Amino acid sequence: MKNYKSMTREELAAEKDALTLRYEEYKAMSLALDMTRGKPSSEQLDLSNHMYDDLASTNFRNSLGQDVRNYGIPAGIVDARELFAQILETDKDNIAMGNSSSLNQMFDTMMRAMVFGEVDSDKPWSAIEGRKWLCPAPGYDRHFRVTQTLGFELIAVPMTDDGPDMDMVEELVKDEKVMGIWCVPCYSNPDGIVYSEETCERLAGMKTGAKDFRIYWDNAYVVHHLTENDSLRGHVPDMLSLCDKAGNPNRVYEFASSSKITFAGAGLSCFAANHESMKHARKILDVQTICTNKVNQLAHVRFLPDLKAVDAHMRKHAAILRPKFEMVASVLKDELCDSELWHWTDPKGGYFVSFYAMPGTATDIVRMCKEAGVALTPAGASFPYGIDPNDTNIRLSPSFPPVADIEKATRILCVCAKITAINKLLGV
Amino acid sequence: MKNYKSMTREELAAEKDALTLRYEEYKAMSLALDMTRGKPSSEQLDLSNHMYDDLASTNFRNSLGQDVRNYGIPAGIVDARELFAQILETDKDNIAMGNSSSLNQMFDTMMRAMVFGEVDSDKPWSAIEGRKWLCPAPGYDRHFRVTQTLGFELIAVPMTDDGPDMDMVEELVKDEKVMGIWCVPCYSNPDGIVYSEETCERLAGMKTGAKDFRIYWDNAYVVHHLTENDSLRGHVPDMLSLCDKAGNPNRVYEFASSSKITFAGAGLSCFAANHESMKHARKILDVQTICTNKVNQLAHVRFLPDLKAVDAHMRKHAAILRPKFEMVASVLKDELCDSELWHWTDPKGGYFVSFYAMPGTATDIVRMCKEAGVALTPAGASFPYGIDPNDTNIRLSPSFPPVADIEKATRILCVCAKITAINKLLGV
Repeated sequence: MKNYKSMTREELAAEKDALTLRYEEYKAMSLALDMTRGKPSSEQLDLSNHMYDDLASTNFRNSLGQDVRNYGIPAGIVDARELFAQILETDKDNIAMGNSSSLNQMFDTMMRAMVFGEVDSDKPWSAIEGRKWLCPAPGYDRHFRVTQTLGFELIAVPMTDDGPDMDMVEELVKDEKVMGIWCVPCYSNPDGIVYSEETCERLAGMKTGAKDFRIYWDNAYVVHHLTENDSLRGHVPDMLSLCDKAGNPNRVYEFASSSKITFAGAGLSCFAANHESMKHARKILDVQTICTNKVNQLAHVRFLPDLKAVDAHMRKHAAILRPKFEMVASVLKDELCDSELWHWTDPKGGYFVSFYAMPGTATDIVRMCKEAGVALTPAGASFPYGIDPNDTNIRLSPSFPPVADIEKATRILCVCAKITAINKLLGV
Repeated sequence: MKNYKSMTREELAAEKDALTLRYEEYKAMSLALDMTRGKPSSEQLDLSNHMYDDLASTNFRNSLGQDVRNYGIPAGIVDARELFAQILETDKDNIAMGNSSSLNQMFDTMMRAMVFGEVDSDKPWSAIEGRKWLCPAPGYDRHFRVTQTLGFELIAVPMTDDGPDMDMVEELVKDEKVMGIWCVPCYSNPDGIVYSEETCERLAGMKTGAKDFRIYWDNAYVVHHLTENDSLRGHVPDMLSLCDKAGNPNRVYEFASSSKITFAGAGLSCFAANHESMKHARKILDVQTICTNKVNQLAHVRFLPDLKAVDAHMRKHAAILRPKFEMVASVLKDELCDSELWHWTDPKGGYFVSFYAMPGTATDIVRMCKEAGVALTPAGASFPYGIDPNDTNIRLSPSFPPVADIEKATRILCVCAKITAINKLLGV
């Protein structure tokens, strides 16, 4: 493929004609391909199908002999807390188990702050007029929706290869109305960026205007490596320790789940906090509910007793996911070798490929793809308020569809990317 | 047994000496009996042990062929909503499934009102200074804790045989700061009272000062009958319909769970609301989480496909519970036939026997029982702020311990009740 920028108008027009022909051919196929959401495929879910088999043979007792069927044990069974302590490299006493959704844990944690305030707050967050929240972008749309719904002004912070732009973050957090920041530190959604140690240390140590500033550390992909090369695996330090060492012990809530380890809709979730914040949370959690689903906790720890078992299990996921990510990469490379106009990520883990189109074309590309039967995440979805200032980013989610669909969908994406780019260059 | 009130001081002193001897004998046994909480026994939980067996053979598909393992279906699978619609005698479209705890649903529902307000609110409830909540008493301590924690002033309303004293309720709700009322309409906790139709109609139709007044209708024991005589079973009308007919369609949230049908710590829960309130709630629920645990929903509906199956299952529970309740009743009758000083309930369903001691003695009785190795719910626990104005009510929970323990615990309760009564009569 020739570099579009070096082509004449006539060459571009001819190229567009050829591409339009291809586009019409795809359209005629009446396809219905979906690359919108980071859902595990059936094949991945099948890996955990037998998690509940013979559960009755355990007599529903955990390692301490407690009956998991009955009321009680509000923080979750020790076995599950120990498992997630290993995953998050912290102590089990810092872990509170939730039900299946870590997003639910994040929402509830923020609702508690809204109504009761944090342990170091002067007042409930709902009483803070003009409260703000930092949103490293592109990021996870559902995170942004939580803070938007709860009345925070969302402040976008650009991502660098090392995580959020820390110079900007350190400047912004001087504002005492800035109450916190969303972080997906390992394999960020959608860029697959792993925060550098320096970024983590600066987040832990920075001086904030709000004394009750909080980092929501969503370690959603902590064990979700794609690479076969273990030395390329992403890793971030335990943020609870870092914050403690930096003299800001209450600063971080960590979140994790097994949604993309076992079942997306029926896994385990947890949050982690230091002693003070956990004590503060438990006072409210113990009013909210008697306990979370401990039978599911037992089923999980029987199936995945420790981090070693989780790692072995995640390698099976990776083996299913890798050909899908490789297909995306290979088609993108094949179609769009002109790297001046487009670029994309090569994630070592997580669930997404982040595609950067020629600025000002992402919305058109997504629209054209839709008309050809390819559903993509709406352009801008990864940005606060759904607005990508450069209209360039498209999040690709290759986990769910079969490889053949991914190939087709990615080819169509490329055709649309090229047509819109030519339109832009031709000024039409 | 002679009527204490007709005994001379000498006779009472002699009776007390005999009782004290018995009390010391019990104490010497170093017992550890627990009648504190309404927990199902292991034998009851065993009834549902095989709920998860061969779950993989379903391919984790529900009746619509949806994969319950994956993300999605935020309101819960239709099969589970249909089951709870049958239980609550409403339409499945009014039902939103939660995770295992209906208390969690109630807490979250009130948190949404606190932060966002109800669909017919002028402002979030957290902005209402001096907000109040009606607490029919005796009632469920965990209900009262929710509203107390969320900053409501708790207003006790006495219970009658037909439910809360409606003359008083109708008077109190004229105050626009009174935002709602807790109700356990069928087999109230702890009195086992079933609200009369008139009570339900008056609740639905009464004129309230707050236009966003809410009834929290916790139908916790809706299918939890103890009686073998079906004609004696408690039943309350569908409150959503009643409120709608009365022109107050948004007034009620209904709650139910399978905690005491399947597993106390791992059942299903739901809330029911009319179309407007549900639409209002879903806007926030869909931000809070992607879905609740649908695998557990599938396991449940496979085990209990409809109300008929639930009824057959609940008869097995009743067969286990009945001898325990009968033992309490028989010991109380045997020991305390002087009904002028003590009385107690004969519930047709639910989980409790409510014991009314001589006024001013309940705290002493519970303390003496504790010293003899019998743990009872603290006196006053069933009242707002834990204060029983007459110090008379003691909630007995016979569901968990074996019958032999129940006999011993109830005898000790009676001995303590008699000693404290004599002390009172003797003025010591």
